[in-house]
Parts: sequence; structure tokens; C-alpha cells
Amino acid sequence: MSEIKNISKPISNELRKLDELFKATMKSRVTIIDQISKFILRQKSKKIRPILTFLSAKNCGEVTPSSYRAAMMIELLHTATLVHDDVVDNADTRRGFASVNAIWKNKVAVLMGDYFLSKGLLICIDANDFKILGVTSNAVRRMSEGELLQIQKSKQLDIDEKVYFKIISDKTASLLSASCEVGAISATSDQEKIINMRNFGENLGIAFQIQDDLLDYLGETSILGKSTGMDLKEKKITLPLIYALKNSNKSSVKTIVKMLKNDLQKKQINYIVDFVKDSGGIEYARSKAEDFISKAEKCLDNFPESEPKDSLLKLLHFVTERNY
Amino acid sequence: MSEIKNISKPISNELRKLDELFKATMKSRVTIIDQISKFILRQKSKKIRPILTFLSAKNCGEVTPSSYRAAMMIELLHTATLVHDDVVDNADTRRGFASVNAIWKNKVAVLMGDYFLSKGLLICIDANDFKILGVTSNAVRRMSEGELLQIQKSKQLDIDEKVYFKIISDKTASLLSASCEVGAISATSDQEKIINMRNFGENLGIAFQIQDDLLDYLGETSILGKSTGMDLKEKKITLPLIYALKNSNKSSVKTIVKMLKNDLQKKQINYIVDFVKDSGGIEYARSKAEDFISKAEKCLDNFPESEPKDSLLKLLHFVTERNY
Repeated sequence: MSEIKNISKPISNELRKLDELFKATMKSRVTIIDQISKFILRQKSKKIRPILTFLSAKNCGEVTPSSYRAAMMIELLHTATLVHDDVVDNADTRRGFASVNAIWKNKVAVLMGDYFLSKGLLICIDANDFKILGVTSNAVRRMSEGELLQIQKSKQLDIDEKVYFKIISDKTASLLSASCEVGAISATSDQEKIINMRNFGENLGIAFQIQDDLLDYLGETSILGKSTGMDLKEKKITLPLIYALKNSNKSSVKTIVKMLKNDLQKKQINYIVDFVKDSGGIEYARSKAEDFISKAEKCLDNFPESEPKDSLLKLLHFVTERNY
Repeated sequence: MSEIKNISKPISNELRKLDELFKATMKSRVTIIDQISKFILRQKSKKIRPILTFLSAKNCGEVTPSSYRAAMMIELLHTATLVHDDVVDNADTRRGFASVNAIWKNKVAVLMGDYFLSKGLLICIDANDFKILGVTSNAVRRMSEGELLQIQKSKQLDIDEKVYFKIISDKTASLLSASCEVGAISATSDQEKIINMRNFGENLGIAFQIQDDLLDYLGETSILGKSTGMDLKEKKITLPLIYALKNSNKSSVKTIVKMLKNDLQKKQINYIVDFVKDSGGIEYARSKAEDFISKAEKCLDNFPESEPKDSLLKLLHFVTERNY
């Protein structure tokens, strides 16, 4: 059995039912929407976020009808961001993909994303799930804010650890945190439990993103299918490099910053990767990821031992330690 | 005094206060968000939608704190769609604007739109304005659905009046309808009044879009700043042409459809415009717009005479009869 199947065993029935609900919700009488929705449904997702939602619900009590709406909202929102991510960006044009066709698709991608988001909102509104709505809307704000801050910093090239953690918390951890929080909200009104689950997701998300950023230096393909060196090409300065720059002499820093100001070729990328490795950037980022994994674990301390809790811990390690 | 100033006289204080609120809401500690927000604020909008919201509120009772949140939500949502519209589409590439710079901006445009939308959602959520939230979320769904259907039909080139009215109701009338409905909701719990205001906005919106589509044939610049012949270039088949095609012989239809399948040059556009004019397409679309203007007027029949009601009627004629 694959690791993810094993993790989701306590909620396998719930996930199956969610699949059916999701398929039914994605149906549309507008052919173009129906076709694109079917295309998206065929791209098998790992469903990390709805798994977190259901496990969080079970960890706090029982899965309720509201848990399904929470999981639907989260998955629709995640789908919306994936579709919006498909909008051709700088990186794609550099790789030569900016055909007229790709650009035509941009318009459709924007509209489909807006459509999925509105569908998610309406599911919660129709059932008066306003707390879930608040948590997810806040996640939308944080995600866009984090991505925009990252774009800004990739132009300015001035980024320290504090800004780095703000970016990854907002762009990545926000939705994983929301996935856990809405699951908890759907199952309990115990504020302490809800806050613990929210923080579990937040710390898991931060650890996950540090790990994902590390993979860019380790020459492996990440869980997101991101290819190596891509962050550097996009001028994304992540934790390993931030640490390395902070702990080097002025002339090394000057050389690297000069490289980053221009288009990076393979040679320069290899140079920067070696620089990061030699400066202990990898070990530092790893230890930071470990810190957040420990923080996440602590958030579950007050919950009794159970299958769902066990799965949450397994999932934490699955998404944050892969490919080490 | 300009017509729009005259129309908004009964709510000029409210609009001023909204301006202040809007400015305060758009502030952000993330520089890139702050800069783009300021840029958007400098582009003076006619504020048709918040004007509708406040006038609808006053027509149903009094402007309340909830009316301000409703107007904020509507204006933020409108801003989000404008920013998302800025994503480079097919038309722009044909006009040769698809520079790398424009494409880089795409990513930012998508994220800024998502950001504005989430800000609007959070304003309503924080104040428990859930009815307003439901109305606006439904408008988001309808807008994206309408735009997607229009894109689909511009590829298939099969469009009849029924589909045309579905497209323009969803893509245009939905937000104008929502602007009126949320205004009414913020001021009264009388369902009949709310429905009448919603329908007033819907009919106004349909008449507005027919008129806007007509301008493409009349060689004038529309209220939206759209340039002439653009719809045809984008294969948008609107009411005047739908009528003309329906009332012509097979060989004429064949000629036109053949033209539409290829990139249109000025010569072909002039040919199609003349074809539409000769077939009575202009008069037909005009009479249809008049029908919806009358319908909108009727929606206000049961409201007592008042300054706000008078302004709503003036606004109806202002947005639907300009440039006739």
C-alpha cells in the first residue's frame, strides 16, 4: 500500500464520498466549464488538503456534513489557485512557451479559477458555514499577499529570514493551516482544539515549504513536480541562500547578487548551488525544517492517541521529509 | 454639473465617505500591493455600481453601516474583475501587446484580483453580512460563467438570441443586479422591495450591454472605452449580427460565417457592419434595449416618488441611452 493510502486509511470512506461530491459539483451545462473540469478531475491529486481536513475533524470529534463542505471548499480553492497558477508567467516565457495559444488559455484560466472559487464560497454560504468561509477567505488573502511579496522581492533581491518566513507562511502554510482549522471547526466548538489544529497545519506548511525550497538545491524532483534550479532562475531567494549570503564575506555576496541580476545559465546556477552547500545553507535550512516539524508535533500533544492522530503525524513526516 | 454628479446628488456624502473607506482598505504593508492599489485608485472610476448600491438603499429605506460594506464589497469585486480582465488575452496578442513585460504582469494581475476579492469577502464576513456575501458570490459565479460561455461561443460561432441573453445577463447584468440587491438588503428586510431592486439592476444591465454591443456597430466609443469593431475582431457575435444572420438568405450567412472563421481585416469588418445595418440589426437591437429599459422602469413602479428613485431612473437612462 502506498504511504498516502496508509495515512488516509481512517478516512478512506470519507475521501470516496468526497470524490463523488466533487464530481457532481464540477458538472456544468456550460460545455467549456464541463470539459475543463473533467480535465482537472482526471489529473489525480494527492488530496493532501482534504485528507488534512477529514483527519483534523476526526482528531477533534467526528466527521460531520459540515466537514464535507469544508473539504469541498478547500479542494475547490486549491483547484482555483492551481488553475490561476497556470497563467503564463515570466518563467514560462523564458522557456519559450508563450505561444498565442498559451495566452488565449490565460483568459480561460483566470475565469475558471474565479468560477471554482465562487462555487466553493456558495457551498459554504448555502449551508450557513460562515466560520469556514471566514477561514478560507483569509487564506485566499494570505496566499495572494504571500505570492505578491515574493514577486516583489524577486525584483528587489533584498530578502532576509523574517521576510522569507512571512512569504512561505502566507503563500503555502495558509491553506494547509486552513485545511486543518476548517476540519476542526466542522467537528468541535472547543477553541483550544481548533487553535491547535490550525497551528499544526501552519507549522506543517512552513516545514513543507522549507523542504520544497531545499529540493531546488538538492537536485531532486519535489513533491510538487518542480524541477531543480527553477527557484533560482525565477530569482526566488530561499532559506539556504539567505543563510549562505548572511554568513559570507562581502565579495562573495557581491558576486552572487551580480549573477542574480542577470539571466542565470546552468554554469551560474551550479556556482550558486555550490556556494550554498559550502556555506552550510543546506544544513541550516534542514534544521529549521526540523524545528517546525517539532512545533507541529507539539500541537497534537494534548489530543489522545488515536488512528487519526497517528495519521496526522505520519502525514506531517510524509510531506516534510520526502527525498531527504 | 455633469450628469453623473447630478444623479448622485442624493448620496454625495455617502460616496465621499466610501472613497475614504476604500482608500484606507486598499493600504497594505506589502509595497507591491500598495503601489498597484494606489495606481488603481488614481484611475477615476465612474462608480456606477456603488452609486446603484447607495441609491437602492435609500430607495428602500436608509443608508446603514451595512450599505457601506455592501458598496465596498461591490467596488472591490468590480476592481478584481477589472484587474483580472487585464490579463493578456487573445485580442491583445493580435494587437501585438504580448511583450514579456505584459506577460509578467499577468501573474501579478491574477494575484491582485484574488487579493481584492478576498478583501471584499472579509469585510462582509467580519461584520456577519452573510446575505450580501451570498449575493456577491453568486455574481462572481455568474460573471465567470458568462465570460466562459462567450469564449466558447466565439470559437463555435453558433449563437442564437437565447444564448446571447444568457451571456450578457451573466457576464454584465449579474454585478449590476447584485449592486442594487445588496443596497436593498442593507436597508430593508422587505423581500418584495429587494426582488424589485434586484430585477431593476438586472434589466438595466441587460439594456446596458445591448447598447454597449450596438456601439461596436455605430462607430462610437462606448462608456467602457471600447473601440469600434473590437467585438467582431474577437469573434463576439452580438445581437445586431445575430438578428441579421437569422433574417438573411443562406448564401449571405455563408459569406459572413466564412469571414468570421478567419482574422478580420478592416474591409471585412466594414462589410459585416453594412450587412448588419442593411438587415435592420441596429433597429432590432435598439428596440430590444428599449424593452429592457421599460422592464427596469416597471420594477420601480411600487416605490414612492423620491429623489433616490428619480436618480435611479436617470441613471438607467444615462447608462443605456448614451451615444444613441
